[in-house]
Amino acid sequence: MATLNKNYNKLQGAYLFSEITKRVKNFVEKNPNIEIIKLGIGDTTEPLTKTVVKGLLSGVKKLGNKKTYTGYGEAQGDVRLRNALSDFYKERNIDLSLQEIFINDGAKADCANIQSIFGVDNVVAVADPVYPVYVDSSVISGRTGDFVNGKYEGLVYMECNEKNGFVPTPPLQKVDIIYLCNPNNPTGAVATFEQLKAFVDYAIKNKAVIIFDSAYAEYISDPSLPKSIYEIEGAKKCAIEINSFSKWAGFTGVRLGWSVVPLDLEIEDGQKGKVHALWSRRQGGSQGTMYNGASNIAQEGAFAVLSPLGRKENKKVIAYYMDNAKIIKKSLTKIGLKVFGGENAPYVWVKALPNLNSWQFFDKLLMEAHVVSTPGSGFGLQGEGYVRLSAFADKKNVKKAVESIKKNLSR
Amino acid sequence: MATLNKNYNKLQGAYLFSEITKRVKNFVEKNPNIEIIKLGIGDTTEPLTKTVVKGLLSGVKKLGNKKTYTGYGEAQGDVRLRNALSDFYKERNIDLSLQEIFINDGAKADCANIQSIFGVDNVVAVADPVYPVYVDSSVISGRTGDFVNGKYEGLVYMECNEKNGFVPTPPLQKVDIIYLCNPNNPTGAVATFEQLKAFVDYAIKNKAVIIFDSAYAEYISDPSLPKSIYEIEGAKKCAIEINSFSKWAGFTGVRLGWSVVPLDLEIEDGQKGKVHALWSRRQGGSQGTMYNGASNIAQEGAFAVLSPLGRKENKKVIAYYMDNAKIIKKSLTKIGLKVFGGENAPYVWVKALPNLNSWQFFDKLLMEAHVVSTPGSGFGLQGEGYVRLSAFADKKNVKKAVESIKKNLSR
Repeated sequence: MATLNKNYNKLQGAYLFSEITKRVKNFVEKNPNIEIIKLGIGDTTEPLTKTVVKGLLSGVKKLGNKKTYTGYGEAQGDVRLRNALSDFYKERNIDLSLQEIFINDGAKADCANIQSIFGVDNVVAVADPVYPVYVDSSVISGRTGDFVNGKYEGLVYMECNEKNGFVPTPPLQKVDIIYLCNPNNPTGAVATFEQLKAFVDYAIKNKAVIIFDSAYAEYISDPSLPKSIYEIEGAKKCAIEINSFSKWAGFTGVRLGWSVVPLDLEIEDGQKGKVHALWSRRQGGSQGTMYNGASNIAQEGAFAVLSPLGRKENKKVIAYYMDNAKIIKKSLTKIGLKVFGGENAPYVWVKALPNLNSWQFFDKLLMEAHVVSTPGSGFGLQGEGYVRLSAFADKKNVKKAVESIKKNLSR
Repeated sequence: MATLNKNYNKLQGAYLFSEITKRVKNFVEKNPNIEIIKLGIGDTTEPLTKTVVKGLLSGVKKLGNKKTYTGYGEAQGDVRLRNALSDFYKERNIDLSLQEIFINDGAKADCANIQSIFGVDNVVAVADPVYPVYVDSSVISGRTGDFVNGKYEGLVYMECNEKNGFVPTPPLQKVDIIYLCNPNNPTGAVATFEQLKAFVDYAIKNKAVIIFDSAYAEYISDPSLPKSIYEIEGAKKCAIEINSFSKWAGFTGVRLGWSVVPLDLEIEDGQKGKVHALWSRRQGGSQGTMYNGASNIAQEGAFAVLSPLGRKENKKVIAYYMDNAKIIKKSLTKIGLKVFGGENAPYVWVKALPNLNSWQFFDKLLMEAHVVSTPGSGFGLQGEGYVRLSAFADKKNVKKAVESIKKNLSR
């Protein structure tokens, strides 16, 4: 008799964004004439830029011609694209070989699947609050116990709050795998060199591995802040970096990203290169064991994103969203709300009105201002009492949303 | 200290196709003037058809326009595409709800990741010989013991050989998960209704689940043979079907496929719908826990594949490859080789010359006829003594290859 993976039973309720969708749907059904403004899910709204469209079109056209048609590419990704990514890292004085770069179909699956190469008894640490994939994939893979009092047993939570500026510090106890999301989703907080160095030092000392999700790195405009974990000395010995074209090039639906697994990464004694070899076996080489590569069309698009023109165009898109973030932050601050993030990340982290929890504040924003937010409690215990507002929206709607919040939000 | 998933250590040597690539590269380096004809990897060579290119182009163009731009789609897949797939199944009198269809980025990852929803102690049965992903993902997920005498301990091998026409029969012992690849890769064998019914009966009796990989189903031309496991009565209670646009629409590089997880599937007592719920949690809904959906561009292309014109065009492509298979089969039979498959599948399964094992015959074909095959032993113990020739090639090259084999293969 086949049986089920009982770890799934430990997962809590519906997935955050499904629950939001449900509540919005309910409201809309009861209020068909009210216009809803969605600043909930972190989903891009600006179209792909001209250069990127051109790249994608050329990718498609190649496939329609027998002379230029290609089937399977290397599972690890197109060499030109990996070269372009290597150059991209060189801008920050980071040297990566093509072997160390793995093209994926977006950061999420890699963030989850990377656990496949580690021992199931490894202790995982996550920031709290944080994007749910790290926690949920730890649960599914059996690296946690049950959910008790808002926390999974066996999982180590690195608390982020107003006191530490929502940037986690390394755990006091020993852990094996540390997920960092930087800039953080949902708080928009970004770690300094010093703060990241503390994690690298911890990881090297404890032979732990850092999984560094930097999907929002291109939103960092402050030149004093690191965009890549590899800007920290020693990080190649202990850190895997996972990134994506989703948020800064509008690829949320196109699906493309990359992971860096350095050859120098060493966890168990004398096992240098072994982490790389295992990921390579799973995802890389000419054909991966469990993966056949990302779409060749999407890869053509990503190559165009990394071209000088593509970079220039997408900087404008980033500026557009960051201007939205500024508008949200400024307006909500003005009406007395406590607001964080939104400076080097497209997320604004808003403290709920007194005596309201996240879902209550979510409902209030929805019902009174008709603005969809994301309840902070969906990202962990420490997110309770906050909501996340996303800057991924049309500017007109962002302006409408803040006006509506100003006008309609009763205290 | 982080540790590695030690199951990876059990995996055998390099992945089959990497080893082939290496040997071919060596030969080419030593013989730069000899033209090599590749009938090894099952990789499509014909360009995408006009209608499909048109679909893909329109998918790209939509993303370049603010009015038509979309970000994240449903992780489970575009509703139009799932509708089209539901209609596709109706042609064979199979009723599937949209909820039961999950769009993926090609069959391979789903064939591997589907194991995530089952208990790690579940016993897995695989055909021998068979495409390596089922075995390797069973190893990585800890469902096997060590590799001893050509077999993984704990894995049940369903032997396929000349006697049973290379079609497996249900195991005598109790197993929990049964992988079937039908048409079979590498043998090209296809099961009859009766042969599949034996598996469905077995699965229902033992509450086992069948993972039915039908990536080559569209190559079945014999109307008496089932293309889908759901043509067998009762299959919805016990079978998951995984399919792909890779092989019949040239999507090996574009990456798109689908999985069917029926709501009626029931394994543990009283757990009807639970398998569907778990896969849905992992991959489906508005956003999956470990998956954010397949590329929206590729989905537009797939939708075009399923249009009447797309179907018509791709039938011609299938006929082209199957004509290649016929040429290979006929010619090699003529020179006295024993040849199987190639009638309802794009693979021809060739028995090695007497006293040669698979790799020796591979080397002989490479060095004497300059034709790249795939050694049957790479697909399991029972594949020893055979090689697979792929019909995915330009007809000119196929003709050259068989001429060269005829002329140069010394006995």
